[in-house]
Amino acid sequence: MIQIEGGVTAAKGFKAAGIFAGIRKKKKDMALIYSEVPCKAAGTFTTNIVKAAPVKWDMEMVRNSPFVQAVVVNSGVANTCTGSVGMGYCKDMAVTTGSCLGIPAESVLVASTGLIGKQIPIDKIKLGIQNLVPILGNSTEDGILAAEAILTTDTKKKELAVTIELGGKPVVIGGMCKGSGMIHPNMCTMLSFITTDVAISKELLQEALSADIKDTYNMISVDGDTSTNDTVLLLANGMAENPEITEKNEDYEKFYRALNYVNTYFSKRIAEDGEGATSLFEVKVINAVDKEQAAKLSKSIVSSNLTKAAIFGNDINWGRILCAMGYSGAEFDPDQVDLYFESSAGKIKLIEDGIEVFYRKEVAAEILSKSEITVTADIKMGCSQATAWGCDLTYEYVRINAEYARKYTTNNYLII
Amino acid sequence: MIQIEGGVTAAKGFKAAGIFAGIRKKKKDMALIYSEVPCKAAGTFTTNIVKAAPVKWDMEMVRNSPFVQAVVVNSGVANTCTGSVGMGYCKDMAVTTGSCLGIPAESVLVASTGLIGKQIPIDKIKLGIQNLVPILGNSTEDGILAAEAILTTDTKKKELAVTIELGGKPVVIGGMCKGSGMIHPNMCTMLSFITTDVAISKELLQEALSADIKDTYNMISVDGDTSTNDTVLLLANGMAENPEITEKNEDYEKFYRALNYVNTYFSKRIAEDGEGATSLFEVKVINAVDKEQAAKLSKSIVSSNLTKAAIFGNDINWGRILCAMGYSGAEFDPDQVDLYFESSAGKIKLIEDGIEVFYRKEVAAEILSKSEITVTADIKMGCSQATAWGCDLTYEYVRINAEYARKYTTNNYLII
Repeated sequence: MIQIEGGVTAAKGFKAAGIFAGIRKKKKDMALIYSEVPCKAAGTFTTNIVKAAPVKWDMEMVRNSPFVQAVVVNSGVANTCTGSVGMGYCKDMAVTTGSCLGIPAESVLVASTGLIGKQIPIDKIKLGIQNLVPILGNSTEDGILAAEAILTTDTKKKELAVTIELGGKPVVIGGMCKGSGMIHPNMCTMLSFITTDVAISKELLQEALSADIKDTYNMISVDGDTSTNDTVLLLANGMAENPEITEKNEDYEKFYRALNYVNTYFSKRIAEDGEGATSLFEVKVINAVDKEQAAKLSKSIVSSNLTKAAIFGNDINWGRILCAMGYSGAEFDPDQVDLYFESSAGKIKLIEDGIEVFYRKEVAAEILSKSEITVTADIKMGCSQATAWGCDLTYEYVRINAEYARKYTTNNYLII
Repeated sequence: MIQIEGGVTAAKGFKAAGIFAGIRKKKKDMALIYSEVPCKAAGTFTTNIVKAAPVKWDMEMVRNSPFVQAVVVNSGVANTCTGSVGMGYCKDMAVTTGSCLGIPAESVLVASTGLIGKQIPIDKIKLGIQNLVPILGNSTEDGILAAEAILTTDTKKKELAVTIELGGKPVVIGGMCKGSGMIHPNMCTMLSFITTDVAISKELLQEALSADIKDTYNMISVDGDTSTNDTVLLLANGMAENPEITEKNEDYEKFYRALNYVNTYFSKRIAEDGEGATSLFEVKVINAVDKEQAAKLSKSIVSSNLTKAAIFGNDINWGRILCAMGYSGAEFDPDQVDLYFESSAGKIKLIEDGIEVFYRKEVAAEILSKSEITVTADIKMGCSQATAWGCDLTYEYVRINAEYARKYTTNNYLII
């Protein structure tokens, strides 16, 4: 597997565009992804009972539409809690996109992100779609414009592309995503769009995605709030002309590993770019009885407000980590736990068999001062493990979220 | 039921004392509660798998000891994750207290609160116990000294006493508690001590407490972190000489209502004095199918970081409330929800049947600016309800918890 330049336009036949359509104040706010040929689509969506209109639309289309060929995205307004009017506007987005591209509305997926509870400005959005279609392009720059247009409080665009060889043919997996706040995926994260030219059966495409999100997007938390809009879409157009993957053979494994690489990369980028974050906080639980136990423990630690605030303060308050393990719902023996801190500044053991050991506080504080910190808890019960990703809890997180609706909206629309 | 002066010393036969024993830097850090005659004891404790040594001790004694007569408390160090040495120190506290008071060690309950992972300074604590015993008193002032000595990052002491009449005799229930951080009780809150002179069977005393915490301490959240030390102790010494309550008769109901009043009061005081809090955030879910559904929904809202940050910013971001309901795990129909904001500045409806209605933003912001805010969600499914209490998420919460261990400890002891 080789990492290559680009993102959502890296795989053969995929084009993209991103523009400012006037939904937000001045930042780009609409993106379009288009495949020259019909794609098989897989998707995973939020488990929140309150689902955005586009989530409902996409769930239906990914399941029942014979093929998918485009994804239209707006940022600024989430189209959530908007009733039948909002559902109608969502359909309008698909219909307009389909008609401009000359494809069925049912082959257009939709995604929205931003403020909950306001109707999307449908006239601006229709005009946006008309402006997006003519400028679709397959260059890296086109991908960048799209990746920028889907952001909200994110501070960085998130793109990646990799290539593998299947049956002598180069296959590309590329993608873009956005995260930042309301991130505690219980199915998948805010918005992630993965495009690939692999030839694969629709069943295996969905199976690969559904399995992989459990180790990637579902293992990140920024603030414990599971969004109403979480969506991961995976489009495969088959243009790599590899022998179609129709069973779980070696090619499937190769594809799965590459997909996992892309999704892991995106998960870490979303975590480290969490609202107000100053560091990526990685938690490994090792030697667990099974993966479920390891995942519960690691996700509980990475979600603990007290632990996250301590990480922000470079504060060696390991008791909070044990505490978060204790209320995770997973069984373990606190008197068996070893705990380590690790970063580019080194690695030290803080606890052995549940009790603090000698360590130099300056060294521990130095380790915590770096922008990527790993906590490893060895629970000595088996040989499974899991990794979760989050970020620190900062003043900036509070500032952003104390002011979000008031500061960033006017005339009922988001104007960041 | 009449509210009267005092707290833990208000009921007949109960004495208390609070002193500075040198565990913290300068604030009082040890308290003792003593009953002139043996008490029946009920207790509820943290569900965290990581349990403090005193929690383990108290669980054993409340269950098996024939009677209880004293409670010794230290703040500053939590005696958690301290292994067999910490367990030994905890027992030392009970033995020393018992020997100074001339009662069995098994009749002494112990509580500790503060930093996790450090050993308690047992010599200072033993000396503290020797200094506490001679100054035990039954005045309101003695109760205040004890209530102050159990605090950590709390900004206010928390005391209450009420009286009811049972069988012609006045019965008193009084108490004190502390909260502030690591508050998300899944059994009970940090530390709460209730004393009463009621005559009641031990079984009904425990039953009343176990039932009541579900509506009180278990309905508050400051930060989602369930502490390792959560303890509620209820001591009844029978000195009111009411006809002993041995069945769930009218007297039991009267006692239960008074106990609920005291515990509700304490729960709200702990929530509003959450670390860094500027307001009490009350959430009512009404017209639910059953209490469990209402409790899940209200607790999910009150625990949402995004909602709490919005409350801090007086920000009318009701979408976050719907979002938190959606991921609560409780079933409901988002398209049926009505939502209200209420405070001393008035009450307004924001959502009807899941859709935003017209309201004046200035009025909503004015309502949110008060120090006690109530959100009511009407889910129109049945006739049960539940109330949860929390607080806003502020810069100050982050500051306190980013600096806790580093700033407040030296020589391995907490020195606030």
